[in-house]
Amino acid sequence: METEIVVLEKLKLKKPILIQGLPGVGNVGRVSAGYLVSELKMKKFAELYSPDFLPIVILNESLTHMLKCEIYYYKGKSNDLIVVTGDTQSVSPHGHYEFCSAVLDFAQKMDVESIITLGGFAEGKMVEKPKVIGAVNNKDLIKKYEKFDIDFKDHSVGTIIGASGLLVGLAEKNKIDGLCLMGQTMGYPMITDPKAADSVLHIVSKMLDIKIDLTRLDKIVEEMEEKLKKAEDLYSKMSEDARAKEDVRYIG
Amino acid sequence: METEIVVLEKLKLKKPILIQGLPGVGNVGRVSAGYLVSELKMKKFAELYSPDFLPIVILNESLTHMLKCEIYYYKGKSNDLIVVTGDTQSVSPHGHYEFCSAVLDFAQKMDVESIITLGGFAEGKMVEKPKVIGAVNNKDLIKKYEKFDIDFKDHSVGTIIGASGLLVGLAEKNKIDGLCLMGQTMGYPMITDPKAADSVLHIVSKMLDIKIDLTRLDKIVEEMEEKLKKAEDLYSKMSEDARAKEDVRYIG
Amino acid sequence: METEIVVLEKLKLKKPILIQGLPGVGNVGRVSAGYLVSELKMKKFAELYSPDFLPIVILNESLTHMLKCEIYYYKGKSNDLIVVTGDTQSVSPHGHYEFCSAVLDFAQKMDVESIITLGGFAEGKMVEKPKVIGAVNNKDLIKKYEKFDIDFKDHSVGTIIGASGLLVGLAEKNKIDGLCLMGQTMGYPMITDPKAADSVLHIVSKMLDIKIDLTRLDKIVEEMEEKLKKAEDLYSKMSEDARAKEDVRYIG
Amino acid sequence: METEIVVLEKLKLKKPILIQGLPGVGNVGRVSAGYLVSELKMKKFAELYSPDFLPIVILNESLTHMLKCEIYYYKGKSNDLIVVTGDTQSVSPHGHYEFCSAVLDFAQKMDVESIITLGGFAEGKMVEKPKVIGAVNNKDLIKKYEKFDIDFKDHSVGTIIGASGLLVGLAEKNKIDGLCLMGQTMGYPMITDPKAADSVLHIVSKMLDIKIDLTRLDKIVEEMEEKLKKAEDLYSKMSEDARAKEDVRYIG
Repeated sequence: METEIVVLEKLKLKKPILIQGLPGVGNVGRVSAGYLVSELKMKKFAELYSPDFLPIVILNESLTHMLKCEIYYYKGKSNDLIVVTGDTQSVSPHGHYEFCSAVLDFAQKMDVESIITLGGFAEGKMVEKPKVIGAVNNKDLIKKYEKFDIDFKDHSVGTIIGASGLLVGLAEKNKIDGLCLMGQTMGYPMITDPKAADSVLHIVSKMLDIKIDLTRLDKIVEEMEEKLKKAEDLYSKMSEDARAKEDVRYIG
Repeated sequence: METEIVVLEKLKLKKPILIQGLPGVGNVGRVSAGYLVSELKMKKFAELYSPDFLPIVILNESLTHMLKCEIYYYKGKSNDLIVVTGDTQSVSPHGHYEFCSAVLDFAQKMDVESIITLGGFAEGKMVEKPKVIGAVNNKDLIKKYEKFDIDFKDHSVGTIIGASGLLVGLAEKNKIDGLCLMGQTMGYPMITDPKAADSVLHIVSKMLDIKIDLTRLDKIVEEMEEKLKKAEDLYSKMSEDARAKEDVRYIG
Repeated sequence: METEIVVLEKLKLKKPILIQGLPGVGNVGRVSAGYLVSELKMKKFAELYSPDFLPIVILNESLTHMLKCEIYYYKGKSNDLIVVTGDTQSVSPHGHYEFCSAVLDFAQKMDVESIITLGGFAEGKMVEKPKVIGAVNNKDLIKKYEKFDIDFKDHSVGTIIGASGLLVGLAEKNKIDGLCLMGQTMGYPMITDPKAADSVLHIVSKMLDIKIDLTRLDKIVEEMEEKLKKAEDLYSKMSEDARAKEDVRYIG
Repeated sequence: METEIVVLEKLKLKKPILIQGLPGVGNVGRVSAGYLVSELKMKKFAELYSPDFLPIVILNESLTHMLKCEIYYYKGKSNDLIVVTGDTQSVSPHGHYEFCSAVLDFAQKMDVESIITLGGFAEGKMVEKPKVIGAVNNKDLIKKYEKFDIDFKDHSVGTIIGASGLLVGLAEKNKIDGLCLMGQTMGYPMITDPKAADSVLHIVSKMLDIKIDLTRLDKIVEEMEEKLKKAEDLYSKMSEDARAKEDVRYIG
């Protein structure tokens, strides 16, 4: 069994832009992509299955669902949109490469014009007004995109772990423009951050010149605010304790 | 070397139903399937070997036995039965997918009508009268099966780990009806729970309209009762101790 | 790159018996096989390489040596001998299956009559006069072999981990007789036990009716005796300490 | 997706010698190879990608870079040079074999005359004047190389872990001469040791009769000296503490 994309509907799309948002830091990618799919009433036309996902099924109303990613489309004005989102990322290093490789093959078959991946950027503390940090696979793209309030300055050096970075990296090998958008978030495990997703979606909306009604998400953000603050207090207390117990381990 | 099913006898079966029961939570799946094979005097006609099993052999009266799963058949009235049971599940995430994929391929070659997997549902405490929880890969099946005292209400949301869930999930992709039956059990490691298996088999017997003499199993249940109670006392004491020592780690 | 056997000299052997002895419990298999190769002045005719070995090379007099297994032959009276020995076993579960599968394919190409694997049996304490425990893949072999002082009684139930068990198990699938001989040893990590190897070789010598001069090995055994006793004292003290600190974890 | 070498420029080189220097102990291999590439103004003509690298991309000025190795050439007098260097080694045992196997295939296609791998030799303490320890895959090479101040005496027995050893080992299987040069270094994690790289490069320069200006590196060494000494003090204090807490675990 290999990573496989099952096409449910054969389509010819117009200069499509592929957007990928998967579970990860603050769940920013998945929430952003999911909101996009739901607000734009996008239609599913393909599914991705992989033996490198966890060997589990999800139960909902007693119905089993295999872990999978779902691929949606939207008919846009100048560009159609493809959104890849889903339950999970791969569980092995090798699996991440297989996954992104399969998505990229699919993107090439659909004649994708460019790829945008959505994710979170772990700040380790709460961020009042999350910025959106950008990374590109082609220097010229910085000029093209920086007018949309994407930050290419403050975090221009580092690493991106997982599928959002890797897909953009692999895209370069195939001469496809790639942009990774990362909304600043606390990055504590198990905390979904809709506020960072909101920031990301504001930019996606402007970039793609697509009207996305964000009021529903804004409301969720308001409700989450207090919960997130409590979480931060707890985590910062815990990490202070941890630091106190820890010996110095590394030398820079 | 790949996961492989060795066919010992070529058969044409009548609208067969495939039942899979493997080692897992409370050993419920394996005990149930094994009891079925023994009571119905089923005949082995295939074996499954996999390089994703543990690299060990089992010794019995100084005879080596490779880890394998065994596939049996039974000539029924309206439907023949196929039972897949065995020593082990895979030891890697990837291996689970390979395993279930091989079983499903085999099921399709045998023109299987539907698939039923048997397993345990870990409750974390002893259950006086274990219910049998169901999960299906097709909404219509709930109506079809709920008359058999299968619970589709109390645990309708969650995840199923391992081969019993995955086979039902993969079956959906191939348009084969799938039902997972999970007998409630403590779910402590290393404790076989024949009582949960007994509950599962009562339902299987009714569903398939096959007479299974459960007196032998009922007797084992009686004998185990006291042992299981002791185990529960010990485990609950141990987990209390563990909780006392543990810091708060997650925020819901 | 795959597990591969490189043949250095093409041979036609007379009803060959294949003996495999690899590193493992007490290093019994490797020491026994190595002594056999050296005493019988066997000639190497093939080498096995595998990407499932550790990614290291061994240095000896500044010469690099890849981890490999070596395959030797000996012209016997009624049966020729093949000995498979080497530096290592595989480092992954999957790798063990690939390894044994490759050895078995090779054995079949050489028209091997039967397979004997040599190893150690971990007793957890020092054994004054180590017995040799046997396991077979065919019931009839017990009668054939028990006259050679092989113990098929005291440890007839259990599991054998790694290549010595797995090769015998896989051989059965291919209708090749297989015998696993395990010399009783302490089984503490990192302790080579020539005494257990000595016991194994006495039996191999009788079984194959081949004269093997064991005086050199007997001498090593004598020299090791004191060292082994010290090791046992230390280990048993250490495990007492460990037991004292440990909570009860399992219920039988 | 498999380990793959993408050729950017097709070349015919004159009796090329391949030099590989990757991240590892003290980062000696990578620093040496990188300095060589930069001082000789070598030109990149191929890139190696592998699904066995970490699934991350590196950010630099907001540009994503996949983990890769880069392959450079230099037109020499009697021999051309090929240098393989890069961001990483593989993250799985199997991956190391795939990686070295791909490099060796490439070397054979380029008609490489011999292979030299550069790395560090962990001494566990600071070394005033680091020697360069050699290992070869062919006994005759010791005579050929020992005149260049390579030490084939003091560390002639042991193991080499990872790609520098493995490539030399695999080369022997294909009858290509291989030499591994290891500069003595502390070998503490996360400490780059330019001093060891300097020693290695002095020897490479003499061996290949190529003038390499080492003044820039010598300057870095001077600056690092104090930092390295502090690191050693800290580490030796830490390991004393660790030893004090540790029980005796192994018996030699």
